[in-house]
Amino acid sequence: MQVHRLRSALSSRLISIEDEKEKKLMSISETVRMGFSKQPFMKTIGAQLASVGSGKCEIFLPFDAKLTQQHGFFHGGVISTIADNAAGFAAYSLMPQDCQPLSIEFKISLLSVATGKPLIARAEVLKAGRKIFHVRCDVLSVGEDDEDLVATALATIKCSKSVKEV
Amino acid sequence: MQVHRLRSALSSRLISIEDEKEKKLMSISETVRMGFSKQPFMKTIGAQLASVGSGKCEIFLPFDAKLTQQHGFFHGGVISTIADNAAGFAAYSLMPQDCQPLSIEFKISLLSVATGKPLIARAEVLKAGRKIFHVRCDVLSVGEDDEDLVATALATIKCSKSVKEV
Amino acid sequence: MQVHRLRSALSSRLISIEDEKEKKLMSISETVRMGFSKQPFMKTIGAQLASVGSGKCEIFLPFDAKLTQQHGFFHGGVISTIADNAAGFAAYSLMPQDCQPLSIEFKISLLSVATGKPLIARAEVLKAGRKIFHVRCDVLSVGEDDEDLVATALATIKCSKSVKEV
Amino acid sequence: MQVHRLRSALSSRLISIEDEKEKKLMSISETVRMGFSKQPFMKTIGAQLASVGSGKCEIFLPFDAKLTQQHGFFHGGVISTIADNAAGFAAYSLMPQDCQPLSIEFKISLLSVATGKPLIARAEVLKAGRKIFHVRCDVLSVGEDDEDLVATALATIKCSKSVKEV
Repeated sequence: MQVHRLRSALSSRLISIEDEKEKKLMSISETVRMGFSKQPFMKTIGAQLASVGSGKCEIFLPFDAKLTQQHGFFHGGVISTIADNAAGFAAYSLMPQDCQPLSIEFKISLLSVATGKPLIARAEVLKAGRKIFHVRCDVLSVGEDDEDLVATALATIKCSKSVKEV
Repeated sequence: MQVHRLRSALSSRLISIEDEKEKKLMSISETVRMGFSKQPFMKTIGAQLASVGSGKCEIFLPFDAKLTQQHGFFHGGVISTIADNAAGFAAYSLMPQDCQPLSIEFKISLLSVATGKPLIARAEVLKAGRKIFHVRCDVLSVGEDDEDLVATALATIKCSKSVKEV
Repeated sequence: MQVHRLRSALSSRLISIEDEKEKKLMSISETVRMGFSKQPFMKTIGAQLASVGSGKCEIFLPFDAKLTQQHGFFHGGVISTIADNAAGFAAYSLMPQDCQPLSIEFKISLLSVATGKPLIARAEVLKAGRKIFHVRCDVLSVGEDDEDLVATALATIKCSKSVKEV
Repeated sequence: MQVHRLRSALSSRLISIEDEKEKKLMSISETVRMGFSKQPFMKTIGAQLASVGSGKCEIFLPFDAKLTQQHGFFHGGVISTIADNAAGFAAYSLMPQDCQPLSIEFKISLLSVATGKPLIARAEVLKAGRKIFHVRCDVLSVGEDDEDLVATALATIKCSKSVKEV
């Protein structure tokens, strides 16, 4: 649901492009989407890029039994994966064209267990430096009419010109 | 390699059980192995429980292209997943029988990118409280003759009597 | 300024107590204030409890050269101290009377350096469990007309019945 | 005790300087000592630089009632302060001369409460990048004949050419 709403909002925006800001946002979105589409691990877990903005990114993850731990809840590693990734792409949206995002560390507080419903990771850059980006990311379990905060993370993302460099 | 060596070391230990301590260690190992085998996400990524000791746990993960990010390196989420999980099972090995481990938070510092070689996550309990376990976990990229430190994490694991409780 | 405004807002509220909820809030506030006043380290750095609410706490810290590092900025340890403490008291405001707050861990992202102006640490409980409280805390540098985000922290606070237990 | 032992070890080393490596180490030590001596907050809490090596640093902190929380234990903020600072100076020892260390984030796990005895923070660089340093720091409560692990931290330190830049 949420993803469809977000996507149609994005589509309608893309149609009505009228100014440079919109063009730049589209370009950011395309760059981020291209980066995301090149991550095999996102396909492995079934995650989708739900939306991209300036300093923002949302990743959507449908529930799947293959992503669970021993009690049928989303594995903490899965929750961490989409939190870290949304943080990285939120930072990427603000980086110069010759830079790639590299996570140098993150911390995640796991507030609640989650199962059945899809997850959405919502990241926002708190501080964009020249090299270092501080990003906050919330992970929510989203139902038809409600959202529960499942986890929250703080990540440090580096703008890297060489992909080998961390 | 490493896993086979660890497993045969463990097997030979199991054969020579002579005292209560060994019996208890075997029982811990079995409990942890049973918990691990019930996690579908470990199968999804191809992770194996390499060894279990009192307050210790190692998880082994062969390289697979489906676990990578856009540059062919292990995805940070994958590295975090095995770090968090090894920490949880290291804590589990010290918990009373009616308890289940639940990660309440972790922080991971990602020191180097890694590709091609398998990873091993090595967790050790630093402090075992009644309810709260502090665990350190290193993740290494292991070659035939060398190991590189890829990441290091600190996790807080809770002993939970109800699986819904976090 | 901020503290005076907050305090007079609190005073006027205290005068118009009309219902149980207000009475309980006053009692929470008094409990937290008493706890805060018993911390010698808060006197050492000159920190003041600015406000207390249900699951919330603000600590105010005037600038003082004795709190700085080598370049005249607030020392990171000072920023961390008020973040951790505001988190602990925000959690304390939701704990049963026989519990004491104990920080079991925290992570702080240091976004900007700060000097000259006072700091305020603003903590809010994200999840209140029976034993474990997850708390977010922002630290801001506050001027006459502006506020800058200096740091943000995530803390895990334990409700402890014995002060020796961590 | 510990400090005296460490200092006399250092002094004897300084006397026997025979090669370039030693000279460089002395120079690192002097640079770090100068940086440390310029931090007013270290004087405020009574912390001393106990030792410096290549990628290593120890800070010593005698117990003082003014550094405590409501139950007479070292305040968590004090423990965090020396952990963060030892990490920063350990990184500084490996930086080029035109760089200053700036903490960009740290996480600390508080394992035990501590009182009466002095603390020592022992930091070691895990990974020295061109710009980013990952550092581990343990904080111990040190008695005549024993040491207890009180806390452990992971910090990210940035090599900064401008002191305003974070």
